[in-house]
Amino acid sequence: MRLAVIGVGLIGGSFALALKQAKAVSHVVGVGRSEQNLKLALERGIIDEMARDPAQATKDADLVLVAAPVAQFSSIFSSLRNSRAIITDAGSTKRDVIAAARNALGKDVSRFVPAHPIAGAEKSGAAAANAELFAGKRVVLTPLEENPQEAISTVRSAWQACGAKLSEMNAEEHDAVLAAVSHLPHLLAFALVHEVAGRKNSEQLFSFAAGGFRDFTRIASSHPEMWRDICAANKDRLLDEVSRFSRKLEQVKALLDDPASLEKLFAEARDARDRWIRSS
Amino acid sequence: MRLAVIGVGLIGGSFALALKQAKAVSHVVGVGRSEQNLKLALERGIIDEMARDPAQATKDADLVLVAAPVAQFSSIFSSLRNSRAIITDAGSTKRDVIAAARNALGKDVSRFVPAHPIAGAEKSGAAAANAELFAGKRVVLTPLEENPQEAISTVRSAWQACGAKLSEMNAEEHDAVLAAVSHLPHLLAFALVHEVAGRKNSEQLFSFAAGGFRDFTRIASSHPEMWRDICAANKDRLLDEVSRFSRKLEQVKALLDDPASLEKLFAEARDARDRWIRSS
Repeated sequence: MRLAVIGVGLIGGSFALALKQAKAVSHVVGVGRSEQNLKLALERGIIDEMARDPAQATKDADLVLVAAPVAQFSSIFSSLRNSRAIITDAGSTKRDVIAAARNALGKDVSRFVPAHPIAGAEKSGAAAANAELFAGKRVVLTPLEENPQEAISTVRSAWQACGAKLSEMNAEEHDAVLAAVSHLPHLLAFALVHEVAGRKNSEQLFSFAAGGFRDFTRIASSHPEMWRDICAANKDRLLDEVSRFSRKLEQVKALLDDPASLEKLFAEARDARDRWIRSS
Repeated sequence: MRLAVIGVGLIGGSFALALKQAKAVSHVVGVGRSEQNLKLALERGIIDEMARDPAQATKDADLVLVAAPVAQFSSIFSSLRNSRAIITDAGSTKRDVIAAARNALGKDVSRFVPAHPIAGAEKSGAAAANAELFAGKRVVLTPLEENPQEAISTVRSAWQACGAKLSEMNAEEHDAVLAAVSHLPHLLAFALVHEVAGRKNSEQLFSFAAGGFRDFTRIASSHPEMWRDICAANKDRLLDEVSRFSRKLEQVKALLDDPASLEKLFAEARDARDRWIRSS
């Protein structure tokens, strides 16, 4: 099996390494904008060959992973028109990616089985790639009506070979779920840090921030461009989540006058979180 | 030096262990409501003697640490009227603690030097105590006008012997700073978990929550009773912070229609956080 990875960063590089380690691929070509990053990927044995042109690189590929920033997906999908490969991706939102694929590939979209590996992405580049990144992590597939079973099986097998736990849902459900448990928390963390950083006494404030603040805001160190694209792609769902959260915050605010009910709400939240942590 | 610790939990127990390790105290009596916890503290060598009555236990003490839940502070301070000891505390809010001390101790409040060790408190009880808890952590003193220099020095020395980095500010400033970098994030984390837990599909939502959500919500596993008291004591400052945050969230929401400005805001937040992490 010949693999082409478009975007040899943390996700793309880890996918290639994991499949090599599982002996599921025999040859990997890496495509990217940064020659320096591709050279590093070659040196680290992540890829066997580097290329700048996706069309050329995917001509003989059996499987293609698109792991570039989502804003580039349209032009990448267009360049895959003449390939015969099964295609999967690693985008954090799915409705927009599927729309771009349909638009670029037409009925050939049947070769594209969308995926979202839910794995941390604070570090970036081929330097951060590792074969264990997806081990035990969730990968959500959002197959299309047009996908033949064989294409879905090929993509399932590849992600499973990476050690991932696979789930399936449709793109609408995926984007709604991720808005609640990923996109909203990122927005809140960025907002809190921006608020504190904009104060006259921000230096003093940061100097008394402790471990709780550090963990709460860890995701505010995420990639601004990537999160801009996620927010744009999932705007409607994210707005729903911001509204729900604002209503909850108003409720909590009102309970500052009702300590017993406030304690009950805190205890319910703690219990729910502790149950989740124990079960995960 | 004879030490009495009222409330031999994570904070009180760690204070006793650290001072014993530094050979700064010769004898420690522990006071608490739970006999089981006090017995464990005896077994672990955290205290040398256990007592139920604070007045009796602190009669011959040179230094008293009040590390009980803040709601008990009034009655504890009243029981310290006949002691001659220097008193410090570990309360997370300072204006309310000082008011309670003034009320209970009258002019003897001069013996009380308020302190707030900013050290994680997710675990609790004597079982969790350790001599290194305060090493390198900040402890804020909010001395009173009435405090003689000698009392301040005694309390400074004790916290320094625990390895803490000391700062001083007044109680108003302390409560405002902590509202921004500690109390508000706790409220937001409790609110988010409560919102997700209350949904019909909460099980599905939690099952797709990953490391970002786990870290963001870690502080929602904090002690509900303790956080009820903190919110009640610091209500005015906390309401200020909720309002500021809500305004910032509205601003971020509006930027969902302006991707370039949204990315700029994300980048500013990330840069501010990264600078803080590097400097801390």
